[in-house]
Amino acid sequence: MSTIRVELGPDSYDIVISRGVLSRAAEELNLNRKVLVVSDSGVPSQYVQTVLSQCKQGFSFVFPSGEESKTLKTFEKVLVCMMEHNFSRKDCVVAVGGGVVGDLAGFASASYMRGIDFYNIPTTVLSQVDSSIGGKTAVNLDSVKNIVGAFHQPKKVLIDPEVFATLPKRQISNGLSEALKMSATFDPELFDLFLKHDPFEQIDLVIEKSLLCKKNVVEKDEKEMGLRKVLNFGHTLGHGIESTLLDGSLYHGECVALGMIPMCAPDVREKLVRCLEKLELPTSYAFDEQKVKQAMGHDKKADGSKVSAVYVPQVGTFEIREMSLSELYGLLPLIQA
Amino acid sequence: MSTIRVELGPDSYDIVISRGVLSRAAEELNLNRKVLVVSDSGVPSQYVQTVLSQCKQGFSFVFPSGEESKTLKTFEKVLVCMMEHNFSRKDCVVAVGGGVVGDLAGFASASYMRGIDFYNIPTTVLSQVDSSIGGKTAVNLDSVKNIVGAFHQPKKVLIDPEVFATLPKRQISNGLSEALKMSATFDPELFDLFLKHDPFEQIDLVIEKSLLCKKNVVEKDEKEMGLRKVLNFGHTLGHGIESTLLDGSLYHGECVALGMIPMCAPDVREKLVRCLEKLELPTSYAFDEQKVKQAMGHDKKADGSKVSAVYVPQVGTFEIREMSLSELYGLLPLIQA
Repeated sequence: MSTIRVELGPDSYDIVISRGVLSRAAEELNLNRKVLVVSDSGVPSQYVQTVLSQCKQGFSFVFPSGEESKTLKTFEKVLVCMMEHNFSRKDCVVAVGGGVVGDLAGFASASYMRGIDFYNIPTTVLSQVDSSIGGKTAVNLDSVKNIVGAFHQPKKVLIDPEVFATLPKRQISNGLSEALKMSATFDPELFDLFLKHDPFEQIDLVIEKSLLCKKNVVEKDEKEMGLRKVLNFGHTLGHGIESTLLDGSLYHGECVALGMIPMCAPDVREKLVRCLEKLELPTSYAFDEQKVKQAMGHDKKADGSKVSAVYVPQVGTFEIREMSLSELYGLLPLIQA
Repeated sequence: MSTIRVELGPDSYDIVISRGVLSRAAEELNLNRKVLVVSDSGVPSQYVQTVLSQCKQGFSFVFPSGEESKTLKTFEKVLVCMMEHNFSRKDCVVAVGGGVVGDLAGFASASYMRGIDFYNIPTTVLSQVDSSIGGKTAVNLDSVKNIVGAFHQPKKVLIDPEVFATLPKRQISNGLSEALKMSATFDPELFDLFLKHDPFEQIDLVIEKSLLCKKNVVEKDEKEMGLRKVLNFGHTLGHGIESTLLDGSLYHGECVALGMIPMCAPDVREKLVRCLEKLELPTSYAFDEQKVKQAMGHDKKADGSKVSAVYVPQVGTFEIREMSLSELYGLLPLIQA
């Protein structure tokens, strides 16, 4: 068991990484009140039941899994559910699931009565690595992702590595891609673990170390004013590719994997590709170059025709480069299958 | 012209009270960017035009006036409007109108991209006195008021007393009721002004002084953990009455006027009633006692069957009394017509 303290003044909180913690949730969280457990249809229902059984007065709200559910409509339904059960400001919400569940439940708890306690129990590697830290909650509006939301820090995050037993390997790799990203920009030792050891075998440690990287970034930049840009390593090109694949043929982490490759110095790239191959992540893909360019031009992170992109000159370091869209377009052939 | 500085650390801001400031808004606010002016059909359209004409890139969103518009549906429309005009995090929202406009525009700016700049130009006495300070933004859900929202402080508030020229006297009295409330609990000098002078004549001063009272409360209790309860003076009974009058036959401030009367020591009550009469506010009303009791029992401020209610033993002081609902019900005949 290990605990990571995220220091954000009055909004500080702990992330507890411990095998079996799901069934001991009530020791870590104050469930002695009304609790709404929010989850989706992709999450094994025994996880929800395990948490509910530990609540004084537990209710559950389960919505259909998938990005299509991440709307103001579902947000409203969660709020109505709390209202109908007469939730007060002293009650709480627990998210059990992946990133969509955490984002949606987090925004609902940020907004209900202008903010009630929120606990997050991410059950995918991606959400453990990516959304345990940051306090970013949101829903989509029309086709624009995460455009409506709030910064709302959880009171505590529980990570139970035992849940990986029920995850397909591809899902695990999807999350490890974000951990690899963190190591490339901040932690040469963790990068070495990916390169020379078996990251699947040591997954508890990989998650802990990548969370420590992210913690340092977020503590310095809670409201995303500058430094947090480094977390976008691999995302500029990755998002471009992802937004053209409406069928979800690649996962988010797989797109980030592709997106990192061109953004490194050649010797870093060679090592990175070896790590990706070990993780069974793609190192090239047959995307529609025209569509990717179009999508990148409209990425909301773009500012005029110049884009801030993260470049890794050496493992464990990074530069923010102001690149023109055309420079970025020129990198696409490096990852075109 | 006077300026009140609300000290809330990094969220500190100024309230500028100045005749004609509406037409000098660009001197006070950064309108040199995309600006969404949010207003409703009850606000004279020249106010919106006056602000728009000072913006680099101004857009307006005007919704039908009334509490019925204060919904997630309208909230979504405001967000879609910003999205369609490609608002970035660096752009801003200006509310021009009463409390509904401020609450709705405030929540939209709190949520768009997880928070963009918000300026408030309240144009009713009630919203100037009541919602210039506090950072409370919200919409209603079904029939429950303000159940969804955020704390989001404005970057600046402009109060232009010249807008009173277009307000009916009853609307002005409605707002002054909240100012009188503030004076009864905090400011004997302001209470004396109500009692011995003409508050309509000295309205700029009345607004300034009641804002100073509220500022002191909110600075000490930004997130509404305790002291802010004093602002509910007159609201426990007042809300009970208000929520039974679905036809809006009494305004909010008029209900608060009624609600304050039983919650004072007898000699305070006698003076308070004289002030209310001078303001042409009601001192009794033919409400349906059964319905008021029912409504009070379900007031979300109630905690079990005991309720925290504010009592004024002497002008300028207050006590928080834990009263049973039945004690409160026993006070209703004092204001029954």
